[in-house]
Amino acid sequence: MQNISPGLQAFEFWIAMAGTVAFAVTAVLAVMPRGIDPFGAVVMGIITAVGGGTVRDMILDVPVFWGSDVSYIWVALVASIAAYYGQQFVARKHVYDLMLYLDGAAVAMFAIQAASKVIRLDFGLPLAPILLGIITAIGGGLMRDVLAGNKTLLMKKELYAVPVTLGTVVYVIALPLLPGQEITVSILCALMIFGIRAAAIRWGVSLPDWMIVGKR
Amino acid sequence: MQNISPGLQAFEFWIAMAGTVAFAVTAVLAVMPRGIDPFGAVVMGIITAVGGGTVRDMILDVPVFWGSDVSYIWVALVASIAAYYGQQFVARKHVYDLMLYLDGAAVAMFAIQAASKVIRLDFGLPLAPILLGIITAIGGGLMRDVLAGNKTLLMKKELYAVPVTLGTVVYVIALPLLPGQEITVSILCALMIFGIRAAAIRWGVSLPDWMIVGKR
Amino acid sequence: MQNISPGLQAFEFWIAMAGTVAFAVTAVLAVMPRGIDPFGAVVMGIITAVGGGTVRDMILDVPVFWGSDVSYIWVALVASIAAYYGQQFVARKHVYDLMLYLDGAAVAMFAIQAASKVIRLDFGLPLAPILLGIITAIGGGLMRDVLAGNKTLLMKKELYAVPVTLGTVVYVIALPLLPGQEITVSILCALMIFGIRAAAIRWGVSLPDWMIVGKR
Repeated sequence: MQNISPGLQAFEFWIAMAGTVAFAVTAVLAVMPRGIDPFGAVVMGIITAVGGGTVRDMILDVPVFWGSDVSYIWVALVASIAAYYGQQFVARKHVYDLMLYLDGAAVAMFAIQAASKVIRLDFGLPLAPILLGIITAIGGGLMRDVLAGNKTLLMKKELYAVPVTLGTVVYVIALPLLPGQEITVSILCALMIFGIRAAAIRWGVSLPDWMIVGKR
Repeated sequence: MQNISPGLQAFEFWIAMAGTVAFAVTAVLAVMPRGIDPFGAVVMGIITAVGGGTVRDMILDVPVFWGSDVSYIWVALVASIAAYYGQQFVARKHVYDLMLYLDGAAVAMFAIQAASKVIRLDFGLPLAPILLGIITAIGGGLMRDVLAGNKTLLMKKELYAVPVTLGTVVYVIALPLLPGQEITVSILCALMIFGIRAAAIRWGVSLPDWMIVGKR
Repeated sequence: MQNISPGLQAFEFWIAMAGTVAFAVTAVLAVMPRGIDPFGAVVMGIITAVGGGTVRDMILDVPVFWGSDVSYIWVALVASIAAYYGQQFVARKHVYDLMLYLDGAAVAMFAIQAASKVIRLDFGLPLAPILLGIITAIGGGLMRDVLAGNKTLLMKKELYAVPVTLGTVVYVIALPLLPGQEITVSILCALMIFGIRAAAIRWGVSLPDWMIVGKR
């Protein structure tokens, strides 16, 4: 693995924090129409923000990431409270859209980070990095949907699992073909996930009909 | 940590057992109206009784508590069968009310025990003891609601997450301020949780309207 | 523990693979009527196929079984894609029935394998082998139902948890009574589970009414 430059590390840190905010805020907004008190909203925001990575670490049997760095929980906590009481602000179209794009950026980065972690641990190659990338990126959202009683994102037409799958598949294939280029490959694959997800948010891009079987 | 007197240990043991009974019984009563066979009811009762603490131990990466002391599972098993076939008895108003209060006492004690365990492991301070206290206390109930297809307790107006959050927050703040007083602080915080929960059961106390945003 | 003959090992391997196919295929068929894209279907198929064993290994705190042998994930992946695009083939009555029986055979074998693993680890005897046998056998199916928004199999009248419970209970009781006969006991208990499950599939056998309390 290449040494990561301090600049890139700082960039990753800020994306991770912005992504945690976006996960928590979109979770709180998603459950508020069903009626929830601020305590429930905060629990939901935190579970959504850290749930996927927690399951990943438990499956890998490594220490859960927020056990040693609790800043993820602090950020999710503050963002959840802010979203709950600042609902009128964060629900505004352009603020909510910003949250969706940040959510997409976080999904992209968390998925590639997870795949990279799984590869370094030499765990279940080549499929586990893809599967755990997906679980890390959408696991928190699945818990949110299940706990809120909403249709889970796996059952929706919206592109969510698709870009993560494509990006992590390309990552797992490209990495051994381009030795010493881990950072470049990581960034390009994360951009690919974000690009597809952003296109889904912006233009409602979805899978072509011929790929989909069964009634909707 | 102070040495716990044998008397207190015995008291904790009996509350834990009574709480396990209450978790299992209220779970079985909650799923019976949806139609369930005795085998499903027992599985549901056991999952509800030990599910929260199991997730806590998996996140902490310590041995799951019922792996070395299976008495929790025995108690949940017997209580579930008794509740299933003795439904007419346990569903009586005063028996059911007793179960609700025992459930509240168990929630209070399990939450503080969990927070204490997390603090001793020096895991994710200061937020993880609160978060894992909540997960331990209500995690089994969330699994029950999800598996039964009921609205989860996070989405209900009833005070459930609220007292646990308040009590564990006070616990985490008070503990370092009162060195050598762990037992006193633990008991007072557990009583605080139980008191609020009991007020919610007895008088339907809920959060003031000004704290709650969004439609109900 | 007896040495297992290579022939029996090969037999176990093929049942496990056929069972993984059956878990994935029945999962994909179960979620398709709700409308799902192929990516979601594959994620659902894989989670259903390996979810129960994954939770078992996490509770036992042993390495997750597919971390070192990823063939389970490959099989679930290919079977899920085949089921999605070959839906018209696998949904045919006799192919689907074959899948149900394979699913039953896998449930039987996975439950007994899990119970055996728990006993060897000396974990929570005598109840944990039964409980973890049930979780291994039906855990993936429960996750599928929860993620798809379907009524979970615990809430259905169909015999699913019942044969697994009976078979693992007999296994735990018989094993110490018949030292040196582990393989015979394992095969007989797995056949018992499969037999009851097959009777439920073939003739709709269910629990006698007198055992069931509450409205349906």
